[in-house]
Formats: sequence, structure tokens, C-alpha cells
Amino acid sequence: MINGEKKSQLLSGIRVLDLSRIMSGPYCTAMLADLGAEVIKIEIPDVGDESRSFGPYANGESSYFMLLNRNKKSVTVNMKSVEGRNLINALVPKCDVLVENFRPGVMSRLNLDEPSVRKINSKIIYSSISGFGQDSPFRDWPAFDLVIQAMSGLMSLTGPKGGPATAIGESMADVSTGIFAAFGIVAALFDRERSGQGCLIDVAMLDSMMAIQLTGLARQLYNNDTPKPIGNRHPVTYPVDSFPTTSGDIVMVCFSDSTFAALAELMGNRSLAADKRFKTNLARNENEDLLRDIITNWTHDQSQDIVIKALLNAGIPAAPVWDLKQLVQSEHTKQRKLISQGKHQILGKVPIVPQPVRFSHTAPVERVTTPTLGEHTEDVLQNLLNVDQDMLTTLRRKKVI
Amino acid sequence: MINGEKKSQLLSGIRVLDLSRIMSGPYCTAMLADLGAEVIKIEIPDVGDESRSFGPYANGESSYFMLLNRNKKSVTVNMKSVEGRNLINALVPKCDVLVENFRPGVMSRLNLDEPSVRKINSKIIYSSISGFGQDSPFRDWPAFDLVIQAMSGLMSLTGPKGGPATAIGESMADVSTGIFAAFGIVAALFDRERSGQGCLIDVAMLDSMMAIQLTGLARQLYNNDTPKPIGNRHPVTYPVDSFPTTSGDIVMVCFSDSTFAALAELMGNRSLAADKRFKTNLARNENEDLLRDIITNWTHDQSQDIVIKALLNAGIPAAPVWDLKQLVQSEHTKQRKLISQGKHQILGKVPIVPQPVRFSHTAPVERVTTPTLGEHTEDVLQNLLNVDQDMLTTLRRKKVI
Repeated sequence: MINGEKKSQLLSGIRVLDLSRIMSGPYCTAMLADLGAEVIKIEIPDVGDESRSFGPYANGESSYFMLLNRNKKSVTVNMKSVEGRNLINALVPKCDVLVENFRPGVMSRLNLDEPSVRKINSKIIYSSISGFGQDSPFRDWPAFDLVIQAMSGLMSLTGPKGGPATAIGESMADVSTGIFAAFGIVAALFDRERSGQGCLIDVAMLDSMMAIQLTGLARQLYNNDTPKPIGNRHPVTYPVDSFPTTSGDIVMVCFSDSTFAALAELMGNRSLAADKRFKTNLARNENEDLLRDIITNWTHDQSQDIVIKALLNAGIPAAPVWDLKQLVQSEHTKQRKLISQGKHQILGKVPIVPQPVRFSHTAPVERVTTPTLGEHTEDVLQNLLNVDQDMLTTLRRKKVI
Repeated sequence: MINGEKKSQLLSGIRVLDLSRIMSGPYCTAMLADLGAEVIKIEIPDVGDESRSFGPYANGESSYFMLLNRNKKSVTVNMKSVEGRNLINALVPKCDVLVENFRPGVMSRLNLDEPSVRKINSKIIYSSISGFGQDSPFRDWPAFDLVIQAMSGLMSLTGPKGGPATAIGESMADVSTGIFAAFGIVAALFDRERSGQGCLIDVAMLDSMMAIQLTGLARQLYNNDTPKPIGNRHPVTYPVDSFPTTSGDIVMVCFSDSTFAALAELMGNRSLAADKRFKTNLARNENEDLLRDIITNWTHDQSQDIVIKALLNAGIPAAPVWDLKQLVQSEHTKQRKLISQGKHQILGKVPIVPQPVRFSHTAPVERVTTPTLGEHTEDVLQNLLNVDQDMLTTLRRKKVI
């Protein structure tokens, strides 16, 4: 820890106008909120962010929405009405960052495209998140997470050996894009602090998914060797793979001739390490199926704990395959305090998982909240825009807010 | 674009002392280098970063290493020698950021732990990346990517329905941690610009992998409902899934009763939409296997292009499952210039894939390079530390550099 440090939040004083919905944008702005930025989330009156209707629910509230929109203020504004857009335009000069993830073209139709917004706030960091970017030949293609996973190549090289292309069991395209966008926004804030200049940011889901695949791209770009699914094994080293036990799968990372010799001894079959079928990594690769059977024969009737302890004691990296319940209940999760307690107007205390980076020089966000629809409409419009009670009533009646 | 903008790089003037190896740290520092930071990568003399020996190779050079270490300077220093550590200590005051991804404890043994480093540079951003973080009960567990994937739960909910836990075909734990770390470092730089204070950053691979799984955690934390592999289908909406064609799989996102009616019409079987087995999403979920067969029967003998065009024309989001070759060769990749041309001392021109965020207000990195081992040792030691030729010769002879 740094002595004498001031406890503050890294992004305190930064205000974000968040026009984004569903996941990629909200994931990004949640990361900013976790670091102390004030995020004003604009939602459609009565309906809200579409993801408020996504299951699973807790007492009728979307838990998906609650996890993704922690620490934000919810303000309802109908951006399709002139009066609604006037409210947005009045908020723009009060904000440092704007985030949107509509399909390219929508912001122009709302007269909220970057040139229009910059006219009223020259220093804003205007951040557009989309499936393919603002200038791709595919820009109009509907960009669901599964669509981007499919086109990214990541599905094509994930899954059982010889089997079908397999999607990742989480919205990886949305999430990776959200993290990259948050990185870009903070970098632009840093630059603005030094140069005084605003910035336009364009982040695409497909670009983000390509940028994360450097292992596969090394083969594709340098050797024209297109990766295919190979199950859980390492592409060039064996046995680095998963194996069954009586109480769940394990993985082992047996990455060298010496760790393989240790494994052979552990399995009570020291001669394997000298066997010409398994002596070198090349030979182990050639005889992968046979070797997998031999190892499985050793693991399959022992418990996960016993196999892992034996492997670790022998200097062979190994781990249990945990499900989310096991991860959530683990000593690691407790010790690292990975789950925060949030506050929700209807549900009371709710579990929240914030961004994972730990900083010495920052106070934790003390009171994590997650907003009900329009919870902060009055607060924000009164305090930031001096909208009075009569006007609020009128705007509500007209369904502008 | 912003008129009259100054073209510079967002992180120009920032110098990073990069002690990290393999992937998580190097991925992080490559993102900083892409934004114009000067990254000084410290490597072991003669051997280098372990990943210099990772395949695939291009003329004996690791393409994996080249992609991950673009735009960095390579400086060889033996940190196990006293003289080597003196060089590192001399570099510390010249740098803004330090990044390391050794196992917790190693930096202390090298006398390069955070308190020691901060004594000679009070404002440094000291960034530690590790498998489990500096204070986890698992801190000493060897943290390979597969180990963290296994413990993260992501494997447990990826893969064919009813099938085994499936690893992602890319080093997702390393990569996601690298991106989060880059986000954290840039946020700390922003804070330092305002507060003048340095920061200690602690990022763990397991924490990072947990933080990306908000969809699964919504079920786990709020409903105690632990997700399992379900293939490529959406957990609650059907048919959102992949299907085979004569020329590769496609995905479709048929997310509502009306898109399902459009699909039924497209398949020449309008009555399906009124059929009580398929009328509602609930019914379609119950009769998933039958519906998959019906759709497969329609897709399997048509080409990928024809099926996708038909679906898109009918308002049903769809996409081809591409492999990396198809992505690399796509019009999208060309238009968005996702592949840069890098320069390598031995290989000449090499393909490089930079971080994906586009900024208006920044010059692109003009000359992308990727370093051979020790390419910049003399440059950095002479120019930053005023080490003269005689001393360089001595240090080389002693294998310090």
C-alpha cells in the first residue's frame, strides 16, 4: 500500500451520459461506474432498457439487468420526442463521456450523431459501440452476440475434436467489446486531461473478437494453418487436457518430458516415460488416444481432490473443473471479496460482481446500488437541469420522461 | 472527426517497464504500446521471454511472440544478478508504469516488490498480474490458462448439451486479464494526472474470468441455478441456434413469435407458426429437438449463402460460422484495416493485429515493429542510463545483459 495516500475514486467527477442498452455498452459503463464515474443511464419511459425483461428474475426484477447496471442512475427519457431530445441536449454539456450502442445510423436520425453533439460539447468523449463499426460493409447486419461469435472464428476453433463449431457459454462478444470500450474511454480521458481535446471512439464487436485471438491468428496469419476444434487438449503439447474423476473433471498441464516422467511414476507405471510411444512430446501427440485412455484409467475411479493433490505434489499443474456454484462458494471468492453487496429499491440487498481490478489508491465504492426504472429521473433533471416540479409533471403526462 | 485536432498518440510520453512474460502481461503492455506508450520489455539474456520458443514459427521466429510483443523494445537483463537488478533499479525512476506477472513472492525475492520500487519512484503505477491475486488462498497454485479456465466455471457451461465441460479455443483467461489490466493502468494514469499519486494494481486471472460471466452469475447468484453446457442454443429462447448447410454452419437468432412465423413461412410451412407445439417460445423450448430436426431438414441441403440471405430478407438475424481464414479474408477485415503491416529485423514485413478501439484524436502508430531478442538493449541502456560502450561490453561478458 502507498503511505499517506488520499482515498478517492479514480474516476470521481467524471459524468457519463449512457444511451446504451442490453450488454456491450452497459458492461462498459458499469466498469466506469465501478471506478467512481457518475453514470446517467437513459431508458425508455415505462419500458426501460430491453434487458429489464431478460430472465432470470428475482421477485420480478431482472437479475441480468441488476448485475450489468450496478452503480448507475436510471433516468427515463423518450428520445424519439423532440422534448426528450431537448433534455438529452441539455445533459450533453454537463457530461464528459457519451456512450451509445445503437445500430449505425440511429444516432443521426435522432440528431444525436457525433458532429451534432460536439457542437454543444466540444470536449466530449463520444463513444460508439456496434457490431461491425461505423464504416464496415456489414454495418447494417443485426449484431447479436451469437452472430458475432459465429463470424469471429472463435466458435470454429472451440468444441470437441472433429465436432461442430461451439459457442462460448457467455456473451463473449458483448463482454470483450465492453471491456475494450472502457479501456478506450479511460485512455481518451487521460489524453483529454493533457491535451484538452475531446475524442470520437468507434469500437466494433467483430474487431474486438478478432483482437483477442492472437494464438489462433499466429497460425492463420503466419502459416496459413486454420485452427479447428480440438477439445480441451493443448494444440501442440500432450498431455495438457481434461480427464474424468468420480467427482468431476480435472485438468492437468503436463507440459514437458520431466513432468510426464513424474506423471508416469505417479500412475505407478514408470516405464511409460521410457516407452518410445510416449518418450517425447511428438510421440505423445502421435499416440494421444492411447495415452488419454491410460491416464483416464488412472483418474476415473479416484476422487477429484485426490487426483489433484497427487498431481500438484508431483509438480504437475492441475485444477478441478468447477461450475459457477463451486467458484462462488470457494475460499478464493470469499478472500478476494469478489461479490459485493448491492442495494436495490425493491429487493433490498442484492449480490453484485464489480470489475476485477484492485487499486491501492482508491476507496471502494461504498454503497453499490442498482437502479429501478426511472429511479433518478427527478434527481438528475432537477439537480443538473433545474427542471421544476410543474415541468416534471408536464413531461410525465406527455410521456417524455 | 474532430476539426482542428492535434494528431498525437493517447499515451505518448508514457514509459512502461515491462517485466512480464508469456501472455497476460504482454497482452496488456501491447495494448499500451498500441496507444503510443514506450514499452521496454525486459528479457532473459540468450533465452528471452519463454514464449519466444512457442510455435508456430515463421523462419524460426515465434509468430505468437511477434503478435503479442508488437511495438515494444526488447532489452536483455539477467534480473537474478545483482548488476542486472541495479540496471532495473536505474530504469525504475525513468518509467511511469511497471508491469509484472510472476508468481506472487518472486518480485520480493528479487527485491523488486512494490514497497522497494516505490522508494525509488513514488509515483509509479506498479501493476501485478497473477493467477489468483496477491492475497488469495490459491496464490501459489500454478496458474496456466487452462487451470484458470477450469476453475472459472466458463468451461463448465460451454460445450455440447449433456457433454463434457469444454475449454475455449483461445487463452481467454490470459487475454481477458490483460485487457482488464490495461484498463486499470490507464485509469491509474488518469488519476495520477489529476492527483499526482502513484498506484498499486493487483489483477487476478480468476477474478477477471468471474467478472466476465454476468449472464451465468445472474442465474447462480439470484436463483441458485447453476448453468450447464447447452450447445449453441440460447438458454431461454428457441430457435436461437446453429444449423448445418452444404457449405458450413449458420446461426440464426429467431427471438420472437413473429420472427418464428417468418421462419415458418420461409420454410414453406406456414402452419408451423400456429401449431401448438411451436406457437409460443415455451412450446418451442419443449419441442426443441423436433424443431431442430425440421429446421435442419430445411437448411442441410442448401448453401450457407442462400440460407443466410433468405433469413436476413425475412427479418431473421443470421450469420455464417466463419473460421479464422474466412474472417481474415473478409471484406470487413479489409475495410476496417484490422491487420497492420509490422516490421521485423529478420523477417521484414509481418502481419500484426493491434488493439481494436478506434480513436479520432490520435495518429495511428506509423511504424509497427516487433523486436528480436535484445534488439534495443544498447539503445535503451545508452540513451536512458548513459551506460557507455566499455560497460556494455563488460555487462555482456558477464551475461548480465
